[in-house]
Amino acid sequence: MKIALIQQANSADIQHNKERLKQQIRKAAELGADLIVLPELHNTLYFCQTEDVHHFDLSETIPGPTTDEFGSLAKETGCVLVLSLFERILPGIYHNTAVVIEHDGNIAGTYRKMHIPDDPGFYEKFYFTPGDKGFDPIDTSVGRLGVMVCWDQWYPEAARLMALKGAEILIYPTAIGYDPRDTHEEQQRQKDAWMTIQRGHAVANGIYTASCNRTGLELDPSGKSDGILFWGSSFIAGPQGELIQQLKEDSEEILIAEIDRGRMEDVRRIWPFFRDRRIDEFEDLCKRSIK
Amino acid sequence: MKIALIQQANSADIQHNKERLKQQIRKAAELGADLIVLPELHNTLYFCQTEDVHHFDLSETIPGPTTDEFGSLAKETGCVLVLSLFERILPGIYHNTAVVIEHDGNIAGTYRKMHIPDDPGFYEKFYFTPGDKGFDPIDTSVGRLGVMVCWDQWYPEAARLMALKGAEILIYPTAIGYDPRDTHEEQQRQKDAWMTIQRGHAVANGIYTASCNRTGLELDPSGKSDGILFWGSSFIAGPQGELIQQLKEDSEEILIAEIDRGRMEDVRRIWPFFRDRRIDEFEDLCKRSIK
Repeated sequence: MKIALIQQANSADIQHNKERLKQQIRKAAELGADLIVLPELHNTLYFCQTEDVHHFDLSETIPGPTTDEFGSLAKETGCVLVLSLFERILPGIYHNTAVVIEHDGNIAGTYRKMHIPDDPGFYEKFYFTPGDKGFDPIDTSVGRLGVMVCWDQWYPEAARLMALKGAEILIYPTAIGYDPRDTHEEQQRQKDAWMTIQRGHAVANGIYTASCNRTGLELDPSGKSDGILFWGSSFIAGPQGELIQQLKEDSEEILIAEIDRGRMEDVRRIWPFFRDRRIDEFEDLCKRSIK
Repeated sequence: MKIALIQQANSADIQHNKERLKQQIRKAAELGADLIVLPELHNTLYFCQTEDVHHFDLSETIPGPTTDEFGSLAKETGCVLVLSLFERILPGIYHNTAVVIEHDGNIAGTYRKMHIPDDPGFYEKFYFTPGDKGFDPIDTSVGRLGVMVCWDQWYPEAARLMALKGAEILIYPTAIGYDPRDTHEEQQRQKDAWMTIQRGHAVANGIYTASCNRTGLELDPSGKSDGILFWGSSFIAGPQGELIQQLKEDSEEILIAEIDRGRMEDVRRIWPFFRDRRIDEFEDLCKRSIK
């Protein structure tokens, strides 16, 4: 099974962003991809740099216009697609939702981002209700996909739950970048931490992990900060956490890599971590803190 | 607060191993260490390469001869010590136990290894009953220590529980190495995975992480394998998973590093992962698998 990650820099022109994504999807399909992942909220700029009620106009239903458009493309190319959309449920209820489209164009399933960040420049708690569907992998013709979104990638619990439910790969559409005002050292620590923790999930669970980020600088409409310099670096790691392939920080590229499920089986035989988990002592993981 | 990790290669001469550890503890104390960590089962060879009933003779009670001996040294040097012993409870019940000795020579607390490995060359399930005391940090004059042992280091749940209980540093006495018959590539993947997952715990929990390994080749008494080439590489990582310092693979050395609790506070402010954990959906972590 071949997976492709499409790393793109977005502009305010939604139609243009979508057209370029479609070009890249067609290109990835020509290169033999079976499964194609797009970055988080790939149709638009990363609008969460400010809290602005007008941005709710960017939301849409699922199914809706984007799933229709990309559904046709999934059917045309014969690829399974992982989309990332601003989902509208009701006035006042919106989610940050990943949608998996089967190669026949139908929706295989959705995942609503469970962990919602909120820190300067990433005001997601204003826009997104935390996911209400739990951590459930999505079955497709290319395998059982543990799709999550961005901030989820910092939570070992989320990765574990997906793996215990039989996910064969963890997939994170992502929008993460540097604060241009941070020092170079701090920037490097942050990017390394981001890679390390996701590779750590791969190790802990003997599972492939794929992270598809956006790239490019997006300005802060409020002018309060220097915006976000999305750090690209989309990557795929193997079941021992080994880095299989990684894109550059600042270029629009496609990563294509082979997923070998036999390797996952082999790694879990030599490292039988699942066998020994002390589930009799894990109850306190459901607490906020333990005093 | 200064922490020291003592990386040593052991022989069959227990007295000699202990004498050399004591020399190194005195040296670390002279270098200003407040807290000194020894490798897993540091008095002896790593006897779990085979299943041999005579090896139970190596066990001892806690308190017992080793805690007395090293307790005197803790008092002499004024350092807190983390020991790792083969603990005898009753005939038929033994644990792989870490002991924290306060700088006045008293026992501050013990931790009984919760996750027990069993794979070729590491037949620990024969020797050690899985720990019966849970994941509890140990309070000392140098802070609240999240002491665990070796195989525990592959479990994000264990690290998380210690952190949620207020541990200020994760500490892993360890005995891990290469199978000399593995390819160089496989050896590197394994060592990288070992570092990655522990650095991942540091990231997930915004906490310092210290891992103290043995070094050197120990032969397999059964002759069935080429023994274990312990890979040293003891290290300490900071609360963003950044590698602060690391020892070589093949030398007996002392690592000394400064622990800055203010940095832990700073990192958890910019990365408030604990705030957003979806504890309402973590119940299934107490299951072996989820169908």
